[in-house]
Amino acid sequence: MCDTCGCQLHEHHQHDTKVVEVNKSLLEANQKQAHSNRHHIEKMGALAINMISSPGSGKTTLLERTIEALKDTVKIGVIEGDIETERDADRIRAKGIPAVQLTTGGACHLDAPMVHGGLHVLEHFAKGEGFDLIFIENVGNLVCPSTFDLGEHRRVILLSVPEGSDKPAKYPSTFRGADLVLITKMDLLPHFDFSVEEAEIETHTLKPDVPIIELSSTTGDGFEQWIDYLKEMLKK
Amino acid sequence: MCDTCGCQLHEHHQHDTKVVEVNKSLLEANQKQAHSNRHHIEKMGALAINMISSPGSGKTTLLERTIEALKDTVKIGVIEGDIETERDADRIRAKGIPAVQLTTGGACHLDAPMVHGGLHVLEHFAKGEGFDLIFIENVGNLVCPSTFDLGEHRRVILLSVPEGSDKPAKYPSTFRGADLVLITKMDLLPHFDFSVEEAEIETHTLKPDVPIIELSSTTGDGFEQWIDYLKEMLKK
Repeated sequence: MCDTCGCQLHEHHQHDTKVVEVNKSLLEANQKQAHSNRHHIEKMGALAINMISSPGSGKTTLLERTIEALKDTVKIGVIEGDIETERDADRIRAKGIPAVQLTTGGACHLDAPMVHGGLHVLEHFAKGEGFDLIFIENVGNLVCPSTFDLGEHRRVILLSVPEGSDKPAKYPSTFRGADLVLITKMDLLPHFDFSVEEAEIETHTLKPDVPIIELSSTTGDGFEQWIDYLKEMLKK
Repeated sequence: MCDTCGCQLHEHHQHDTKVVEVNKSLLEANQKQAHSNRHHIEKMGALAINMISSPGSGKTTLLERTIEALKDTVKIGVIEGDIETERDADRIRAKGIPAVQLTTGGACHLDAPMVHGGLHVLEHFAKGEGFDLIFIENVGNLVCPSTFDLGEHRRVILLSVPEGSDKPAKYPSTFRGADLVLITKMDLLPHFDFSVEEAEIETHTLKPDVPIIELSSTTGDGFEQWIDYLKEMLKK
């Protein structure tokens, strides 16, 4: 009992049985759909990458540059997740690539059922030609997207230099789920108190051996490594 | 029915009745606790500010500078929200200010029951002396914290220059709930394609007349306006 305001000290709502049950059933349904999405994507001839980061870490800019580098040899489709606006899909379409904008209307992450809808729209755009590579750009959020498998084959986490090198340990489940970590906006290193070593140690404490690529979409430094990673993935 | 993988096209889980019911009851319980927190904070003699932003927008650095400017005349307490680590509270304590670290263990935002626990710990630190001003630094997340009233008197949203001036329209509920918007890291403007005008227009489209202060914790530019805002708030 709180002696200042007289109210009860509540347990955090996550311990509530009903909430735990609903969350469990949502996650089970998501996982089932994610498996189905993966199968669906493979039938389309493609591999999929789920891109996760904070708002403004450079996901869309990275995609624009990646499309410029690969579009003559790789058939690319993009699913964009945002709470509102078609802006990111418009930026991708301006590069001549089919893009579906999923607006979540408030939800803080994409989930597998939403992406399933997006795959159907992409298929429609492809006119039976299929894809090699599908990028799914998640809602800008370093927490919630980590819980939801979308049916991707690789999960790429972006950490931008302005965010600070102390972030992996503060957002552990996200970095633990990474197949690749990109440290972005590396050209800004001189202006920030960002330690690449700290970011790498923290990341490897959470997920030993996960590859880390340092890059800048502005200068192009490190970009070749990222393109090589994608090409290697497509070979498999 | 999906003709590629044979699965059903699901509706997004938010439309599920059971989920809607549980969410509604959570939010109602949160709102009730938030009212109680506000009363509790006022009994402690204080006003509270809920600070919301993306990861790495400069919330903790801003608090460090604010404490340096005010601690001789204003009794300050801080509640820090993070998924894991005590780092932010340690940084505040190093300034000689009582700080409680709430680690959410995965949850993507603080809620009013967690903050209630934090208020009790702060009171213990205060040894009966009370506070004038309590800062609640939310989990770094530009989406989920906007839904949860914590019992604060003012809600301050930080948007840092590296994130981009297109973010208000992409995270509308957060900016719609702002009592004040701080554009932070203004010293970095020469290095980014950030339009202060765009950020301001987008913010005012969502919430007309909300005050916006441009500042830099590094150079101190705009800082006086922020301190004046706090002093004005404390007079009321």
